[in-house]
Amino acid sequence: MTVLTVQPDETPADEEPPDTGERHRLTALAGFAALSLDAMASVAYGPEAIVLVLAAADAHGLGFTLPVTLAIAALLAVLVASYRQVIAAFPDGGGSYAVAKTHLGARTSLVAAASLVLDYVLNVAVAVTAGVAALTSAFPGLYDDRVWLCLAVLVLVTAVNLRGIVESARAFIVPTVVFVGSIFVLIAVGLFRSAPVSTATADGHASALADNATSVGTLLLLKAFASGCSALTGVEAIANAVPSFRAPRVKRAQRAEVALGAVLGVMLIGLSVLISRFHLEPVQGVTVLAQLADASLGHNWAFYVIQFATMILLALSANTSFGGLPVLLKLLARDNYLPHVFALKADRQVHRHGVLALAAVSAALLVFSGGDTNTLVPLFAIGVFVGFTVAQVGMVRHWRGERGTGWRGKALLNGFGAVLTGVAAVVVTASKFEEGAWLIVITLPLLVLAFETVHRAYAHIGERLGLGRIPDPPHRDRSVVIVPVSSLTRLTSEALTAAASLGDEVRAVTVCYPDPEDRAHLHALERAWAEWNPGVPLVRLTCERRTLGRPIAAYVRDVSATEPDTRVTVLIAEVEPVRLWQRLLQNQRGAVVAHAVRRDTDAVICRLRFRLI
Amino acid sequence: MTVLTVQPDETPADEEPPDTGERHRLTALAGFAALSLDAMASVAYGPEAIVLVLAAADAHGLGFTLPVTLAIAALLAVLVASYRQVIAAFPDGGGSYAVAKTHLGARTSLVAAASLVLDYVLNVAVAVTAGVAALTSAFPGLYDDRVWLCLAVLVLVTAVNLRGIVESARAFIVPTVVFVGSIFVLIAVGLFRSAPVSTATADGHASALADNATSVGTLLLLKAFASGCSALTGVEAIANAVPSFRAPRVKRAQRAEVALGAVLGVMLIGLSVLISRFHLEPVQGVTVLAQLADASLGHNWAFYVIQFATMILLALSANTSFGGLPVLLKLLARDNYLPHVFALKADRQVHRHGVLALAAVSAALLVFSGGDTNTLVPLFAIGVFVGFTVAQVGMVRHWRGERGTGWRGKALLNGFGAVLTGVAAVVVTASKFEEGAWLIVITLPLLVLAFETVHRAYAHIGERLGLGRIPDPPHRDRSVVIVPVSSLTRLTSEALTAAASLGDEVRAVTVCYPDPEDRAHLHALERAWAEWNPGVPLVRLTCERRTLGRPIAAYVRDVSATEPDTRVTVLIAEVEPVRLWQRLLQNQRGAVVAHAVRRDTDAVICRLRFRLI
Repeated sequence: MTVLTVQPDETPADEEPPDTGERHRLTALAGFAALSLDAMASVAYGPEAIVLVLAAADAHGLGFTLPVTLAIAALLAVLVASYRQVIAAFPDGGGSYAVAKTHLGARTSLVAAASLVLDYVLNVAVAVTAGVAALTSAFPGLYDDRVWLCLAVLVLVTAVNLRGIVESARAFIVPTVVFVGSIFVLIAVGLFRSAPVSTATADGHASALADNATSVGTLLLLKAFASGCSALTGVEAIANAVPSFRAPRVKRAQRAEVALGAVLGVMLIGLSVLISRFHLEPVQGVTVLAQLADASLGHNWAFYVIQFATMILLALSANTSFGGLPVLLKLLARDNYLPHVFALKADRQVHRHGVLALAAVSAALLVFSGGDTNTLVPLFAIGVFVGFTVAQVGMVRHWRGERGTGWRGKALLNGFGAVLTGVAAVVVTASKFEEGAWLIVITLPLLVLAFETVHRAYAHIGERLGLGRIPDPPHRDRSVVIVPVSSLTRLTSEALTAAASLGDEVRAVTVCYPDPEDRAHLHALERAWAEWNPGVPLVRLTCERRTLGRPIAAYVRDVSATEPDTRVTVLIAEVEPVRLWQRLLQNQRGAVVAHAVRRDTDAVICRLRFRLI
Repeated sequence: MTVLTVQPDETPADEEPPDTGERHRLTALAGFAALSLDAMASVAYGPEAIVLVLAAADAHGLGFTLPVTLAIAALLAVLVASYRQVIAAFPDGGGSYAVAKTHLGARTSLVAAASLVLDYVLNVAVAVTAGVAALTSAFPGLYDDRVWLCLAVLVLVTAVNLRGIVESARAFIVPTVVFVGSIFVLIAVGLFRSAPVSTATADGHASALADNATSVGTLLLLKAFASGCSALTGVEAIANAVPSFRAPRVKRAQRAEVALGAVLGVMLIGLSVLISRFHLEPVQGVTVLAQLADASLGHNWAFYVIQFATMILLALSANTSFGGLPVLLKLLARDNYLPHVFALKADRQVHRHGVLALAAVSAALLVFSGGDTNTLVPLFAIGVFVGFTVAQVGMVRHWRGERGTGWRGKALLNGFGAVLTGVAAVVVTASKFEEGAWLIVITLPLLVLAFETVHRAYAHIGERLGLGRIPDPPHRDRSVVIVPVSSLTRLTSEALTAAASLGDEVRAVTVCYPDPEDRAHLHALERAWAEWNPGVPLVRLTCERRTLGRPIAAYVRDVSATEPDTRVTVLIAEVEPVRLWQRLLQNQRGAVVAHAVRRDTDAVICRLRFRLI
């Protein structure tokens, strides 16, 4: 019941309960299928992000799609190798926050945590807008209503998460396999064609090529690289979930990580080869993936299958944030960086808090972006890269501290990854600063500051509470119970019985005002009291101003001051009708008195509810 | 502290406190000026209502303006004579609700009360729209924004009333005198003219004459009469405020009532003579009063003075509802017809409830009517006439019961008034049923039903509480205090000290769940407890589901069931940081436990707040 939870007291939701046997855990293949959803979903917007940047340099720029994608695939290889090492070093799971906490100190871990929070939020917005873009590519008539569609999908996902879903990574295997399978078919068929089968989807849409084409320079290529790196989001998911794998855990998780990297790399390169081969140009209102499906498979049922599979996968990808963010918030709350209410899972309240907060912020982002994925992708990439960089730097520290066999090579690999992702973070932030990146630049430090402020406040409270020290033994004081009354009924009798059981001494108090009607009421009460003779004195508190709480609080203060070693308790008795609407009939006297006593005194407040049928 | 207030406990706000001397009270003239504001304000929309109905029969119909007004003036004479008798019979004040309660039984008095509630609400809407119409007549550019202007005026009046104003009838004397003075000048000057000086205001506005003129029939005249009767609202104000007059009260109040009737009658007849003489036709967007000012005084500063005086008087008239409705609600709450919270004036809460409710309903009416006075006037008239009728019928009963000298004549006068106003009520309701009167026909009985339901519920509660009987004497039970704990800090020590002072026996309880982390936490707590040795047992409640409140509530029920004659109290100790934002840091465990215990058991709940600086 105390405000402070000294020890962590809950199993993380992403760990299986201990009584679950090994056979419920994931093999490498199942783990790959179940945990790669986010990474696969990013294929739907990553290549598009590259093409859109290069379109600024016209058809000439678009020719650089494949080289840029190859660079990204190289980074992917480095990241996968790097995360293989993270899996070996942190077999209990834990993403950049855990790595940074162990190796880089509190503040850096908070930077990682803040970037994760932003990622979770932006992932929802990006996935929802990209999913709706897949839908409106198939049904252009819906394009003008895309913001409303985005909000509708968000409401649906939120509602599902508020209801509480049975969380099971296995549920994600089928849609992931369907999506990856269709993309592979798309690529394979496309490689056998020399020209698009159909351009029906893109026909009639405005080209997104720049009117005044710029020349292809280093900056443009860096920007394209940075934007395209959004395709790498989700690569860290397997490293976070090592405990879900079947023994030998590390080996299986590493294999799944490599499989994820390989499949993702093949998909990215395959799609960009097709983009170059078909000389695709970005157009407004149709995704690049939809154009590719059209060009490769024709404008037929296969096209619609791919659009629907994409949309469903992206909706599920948005859903993973709703599972992940509350867990992160709980970890932060446990470390005293967030209010403890986020760590409290009793009666499912933590879920509700986290889910609703996430939905509200995501809705704001959806409206801010006008339902446009490409406004949000750069913001998303910043947070992801900050997280990657922090994790890699932490790994360098890890290897340096461990100095095991070949530590220099491992540290070099992670250090190389850190430099690449760090540069990418700086490039995206600088190139997109005015288009929204400023939001991240402001929010990230503010989040870190908020975490630290909360932490200091908890430390202060913990010290005042003598946390970790054995407190003084309890003792017994004389107890005076004060019962406010205004009339004589069965409720009064119940209240005095309860008070007599709790106190060494009981005093009834009544407040009266200097007007004739009120004085008459008081005299009637005093006469009835004398006749009843309950053995409890009735104290009369006169008050000039028509206020109920203050005179009682003043009396309580007075008793506390003049009678030392006395514990004063105020017992407030109230009728509680069983029918809900009848509760409107209660006057708010009890609440008014409780509020005043709580505000002005240190007395214990007892509330007795007298149930009326 | 009890829910029921047996005796009324407050002075009505409309009575002066007893220590105020006679010299602060009103003479007949001051009383007339101070209390006639509402009646005078209705001159701004009454004649217009007549003209608008008659316009359905074209210029021929408008010729009946004067005869209809004379009929209304006759009704006014009957009403004034009738209210002179009410003043004599009810020198303590009290409108139709008081008269009906004394002479016609509970249900009829509730009909009167419901019609008064509707009147207060509609008065706000009518006065605000009419005030804005006066403004937009002077500044036609504002006409399209009239709904927004209405809402702005409403916000202003509401804000003033939320701040709390020094209520003084005297503050209304100056604006009333200015308005009445200007109208008299308008009439006097107009009578010396044979044709309008100016028609500048009405020029260019669309005529409101009907395209297909109907012939003048009895029904049309009745409708015109009924609509015009809205000019009679406010006639009852003096009868409600007899205690505010200087002795001899009844005589002075009667004189003020007669003066009000005479002045109002002269104004109505004078204005309708001018309407006939100048052959005024109603036009859209300009009030009849504005046209008359134009025609009589010219389109100069005098015209603007009249428009501003009208607007200010109407805003003040809206303001009187904000003073009156809360008082009526308080009277109803005292008689157990409304939740007692409306009778509670502690810390000014009644004001706020009443004012905000009135503002919200008025705003809805303003939007519903589109800011048009003439949509609202018929609705207003229904409630007013129902109230008049009930009061007169009550007076007939009064004279029959008293049988004093000349009682037959008095009863006949009141009976005649009742028939006239009753017929008017039926005519307005029937003729305006589809245009909004159905709203009143539905709302009025619903309000009465709600009053009666509340009354029955209070009677039931009062009976269950043994109201008016001397209750059983209180006794003393053995007291067990249960203290939920989750860690060992100074707060735990404070909680056990408080519990030891309150109980014969104290038991600490802690809830644990079957997962390893939690079990480790429990063992640590149990070891520390044994070491601390506070002389209080620590009961372990194991629970499969991760819920905090239920196991504690179940334990409380268990103790209550197995240990008879024991009073179980649950003491919840919580940290309360002094800084407000830090209260966000509290987990909600205390609230969760209190909620579950309150819902599932009859235990007394004690909350100890441990203040942290």
